[in-house]
Order: sequence, then structure tokens, then C-alpha cells
Amino acid sequence: MLLKMEGYRSFLFFLVSSLLFGFLGVIFVLVWVLHWREGLAWNGGAAEFNWHPVLVITGFVFIEGIAIIVYRLPWTWKCSKLLMKYIHAGLHLVAIVLVIVALVAVFDFHNSFKIPNMYSLHSWVGLTVVILFSLQLVISVFVFLLPIASDSLRAALMPIHVYMGLLLYGSIIATCLMGITEKLIFAVKEPPYSKLPPEAIFVNTLGLLIVVFGGLVIWIATRPAWKRPPSYGVKLPHPNGGNPTDTEDNTTVTDHKPDLELNSDAARKRNLKLDEAGQRSTM
Amino acid sequence: MLLKMEGYRSFLFFLVSSLLFGFLGVIFVLVWVLHWREGLAWNGGAAEFNWHPVLVITGFVFIEGIAIIVYRLPWTWKCSKLLMKYIHAGLHLVAIVLVIVALVAVFDFHNSFKIPNMYSLHSWVGLTVVILFSLQLVISVFVFLLPIASDSLRAALMPIHVYMGLLLYGSIIATCLMGITEKLIFAVKEPPYSKLPPEAIFVNTLGLLIVVFGGLVIWIATRPAWKRPPSYGVKLPHPNGGNPTDTEDNTTVTDHKPDLELNSDAARKRNLKLDEAGQRSTM
Repeated sequence: MLLKMEGYRSFLFFLVSSLLFGFLGVIFVLVWVLHWREGLAWNGGAAEFNWHPVLVITGFVFIEGIAIIVYRLPWTWKCSKLLMKYIHAGLHLVAIVLVIVALVAVFDFHNSFKIPNMYSLHSWVGLTVVILFSLQLVISVFVFLLPIASDSLRAALMPIHVYMGLLLYGSIIATCLMGITEKLIFAVKEPPYSKLPPEAIFVNTLGLLIVVFGGLVIWIATRPAWKRPPSYGVKLPHPNGGNPTDTEDNTTVTDHKPDLELNSDAARKRNLKLDEAGQRSTM
Repeated sequence: MLLKMEGYRSFLFFLVSSLLFGFLGVIFVLVWVLHWREGLAWNGGAAEFNWHPVLVITGFVFIEGIAIIVYRLPWTWKCSKLLMKYIHAGLHLVAIVLVIVALVAVFDFHNSFKIPNMYSLHSWVGLTVVILFSLQLVISVFVFLLPIASDSLRAALMPIHVYMGLLLYGSIIATCLMGITEKLIFAVKEPPYSKLPPEAIFVNTLGLLIVVFGGLVIWIATRPAWKRPPSYGVKLPHPNGGNPTDTEDNTTVTDHKPDLELNSDAARKRNLKLDEAGQRSTM
């Protein structure tokens, strides 16, 4: 059963567009390093450096973008909130693991060629983002995933969680743009970047693609009408008195927390309050 | 009279912090060009180029940041919505005028030194942002400022207006970071950027300052509790039957549009609906 979503066709349009731009971004970075640069290898050379843009754009731009909008996919609304939290957290985890490998690649390459580390604004903003992202991931697992924190703590921290997530995502895109700028200045030599050879046009276009992808992800994530409804993913008593597991909803699993009491008026009111406090995740 | 704001002390903390970071950003860019670079002049040389970062950070980062949060200042809530719209639009206009001068400065400098224009990702994203910003300004004057558009059109376009405004603002910050990266690579030579001389540390710090300032502006702009209440700036009938102009509210002027009928239930409901549709400006 597909649950109703307001503006579903518009949502589909934005989702398909974002996936298109995201895929194109990943393909463009691969074509860049495989066709114009030294390819991919783990040998301390330029081909090892090339893992850096490939893994960052795949992990921290594309997969992280999907992680941000995964609650918005209406096909997942019949799944339990807890399952979706695991998927959301799991995608972030995949993203940060890829980025850590990307960081190892660039430090390895710098050290092989005696290039200084951590001098550029790209590296300062980038490392800050990676540290804050990891901190956000660990704190969020304890606050939102594990059954430890109180509902009021979750409600109080949710707006900060959402804001920090989107701010870090914007900072990731900005850091990519700085990285592309650096690499094109340093690596495109005959003719140089300033003569705008085909490689420069291609990689500038890659920069525009990830800006548009990021913009679409943030648009999808911040539309109130496209939020996961708070009441779905719950085993409500079957209208005919039958076994709820007979319905099409039988794949749903109850969350370990609030949703259980969703039928009571008090619970509905509390949900509304959590909603106002930003427990549901739109800025 | 100061109208009540939820979380007023927290708002003040964020406002003062953002102003501090914004001021510091402007001071840092001035110290950069006056102390470490060639100063400011309009002579086709490097000192003319220096107007580019100074005017962009002053206009498109600092003043534009104020433009974005000007409706959030609770001291302005007694002013009419129309007056605040003029101030909001006026600040955008000041920002774009400064940026156009900044663009003239850089093209002039490039042409003097036979440096190609418009090859870098910085220039591609930057010019796109300037064009979209100008478009957004012109469209918004016709839709939201002049008494032409219907309320339903305004309500439909407000979420796009807010989203585009914040997306462009984030893109401005990202473009500044690319510009700083380029300039430090090209201009810091003895010792080079990679040796991290004091100038490089100072200007990297400038980059971090504008990221934090941008983050604070977007935080303030997206807190629902800090939105300008829809009912203020209206001459309500005086509770004692006296002349409303005798009250402390006597500086308020009525808007040319909806607020006039705010006392009726129908108007309240419509305001609520506009609110849902995002007529009030939080993402």
C-alpha cells in the first residue's frame, strides 16, 4: 500500500531530478579521474589521491544526500520508524567511512610527495566538517536511536540535529567546490586552467552538478508537506477486528518508543507538541 | 513597547554572536587588503582587485545576512509589515549594488593584466548567483512589495522565495570560500600558501568567520518561534475605546494588504492557512 503524500507528483519530479544530478555527479568525478587524470590505484601516487574526490562525492555528497531525504520517500512510510532510523544512521555511517578512506588517500599522497598537509582553507573547513559530522552521528545514535533518551530531550535536540545536518551538508558541498578549485589550479597545466581546456569545463560542470544536487536535496528535506506522517508504521487495531498482520501493513514493526500509545488522545496531543518542538525533522 | 518573543534571551545571544562574527569578517577582509595586500584604489591594478573581496564580504555576506534576519528583530515588530518589506528589499538592493561594483573591479583588473575572465568555478557559481539573486529581487518586488499580486500567488511563491534566498545565501558563502582559495594560491608567494605564513592563517580564519556568520544567520532565519507574528503592526481597536494613536503603538502604520481585517475569525483562519502555505517566511 502506498500511503498518500501531498504534492506526490511534484515530489517525484524533485526526487528523480535529484537522483539524476547525483548520479551524474558520481559519473562525472569517475570520468574525470579515469579519463583526464591518472586513474585509481593505492600506490601513494596521484592515482591514490584520485580516490579522494571520488569517495567524497560518492559518500559525502550522493549517499549522504540520500540519507538526508530517506524519511521523505513515501514508499518507506509503512516501515517502522525504528527501521528507518537504522537506515538513516546506516547511510551516514557508510558516508563517513568512505570519507575517512578519502582522507587517508590524500594524507598518504601528500606524505609521499612531501606536500604539506592541512594548510588550505579547504582542509580546515573539510576536517572541521568531518569532526562535527562524526560527533553528530555518535550523539544522535545515543539520543535518537538507542532507547535511552527521554522524549523531551529528543524533542529539544531534534531542531539542532536537523539544522546541524543540513548546515554540515551545505558545508560539505562548499568544501568540494574549494577542493575542485585547488585541484584544477594545481593539476591542469597544458593548457592551464585559465585557458579553460575541456577538462576544466568538464570539472567546473561537475561543481555545478553537485551544487544543484545539494539544492534539490535541501528542497526535498525542508518541505513540510513531504514529511513522514507521525502516525504511520504503527500496528493499529484492525478495523474489522481481524489480525493486523493480515493487512498489507504486515511488514511494519512497532517502534520501541512513543508510537505504541498512538491511539489515545493524550498521545496524539503529545505527538502534536513534539511536532511543534521540531521532533519531526524539517527546519 | 517591546513585543514578546519566545526564547528572547537565546535570540539575543545568537543575534549578538552573528553580528560579532559578521563585523569580524568585514574587519578581517579590510585588514587583509590594507595590511597584507596592496590596499584599496581604483587604478586597474591589484588595489582595484581588492575592492572585490571587500565589497562582496561587506555587501553579499554581512549586509545580505542582516537583510535575511531583519524581520526577526522583535524591536521592529511594532513597525508595519510594509515598512519592513521596504527595509528588507532595500538591504538586498544595497547588497547587489555593492556586488556589481565588486564585479566591475575584478573584470577591470583582469582586463588590465590580460588575465582571462570567467574560467574558474568561482566565477561560474558566482555569476550564476548574482544573476539569480537579481532575478529573485525583481520578481519579489512585483510579487511581495507592490500591491499587484493576489494573496494566493504570494502564498504559493513565499516558500520558493525563502528557499531560494537561503540557498543563494549559502552559495554566496561557498563562492567566497572558492575566491579566498584562489587568491591565496595565486597571491601568497614568499613563502607560499602551502607553508602557511601568517597571511594564510589570517585569511583562512576569515573564511571560517564567514562560514560561522552564515550558519548563525540561517539558524536565526529558520527558527519558527522567532518569526514576526502575523498580527503585529496593525491598528487594533483600543481596549478602552480611546484613540489607538494614543497608545505606544502609535508609530505603527497599517500595511496596504491583509492585516487590516485581522480581527475577524475569517481573517485569522486565512492567516493560519497562509502560514501553513509558508506565507510567513521560515523554511
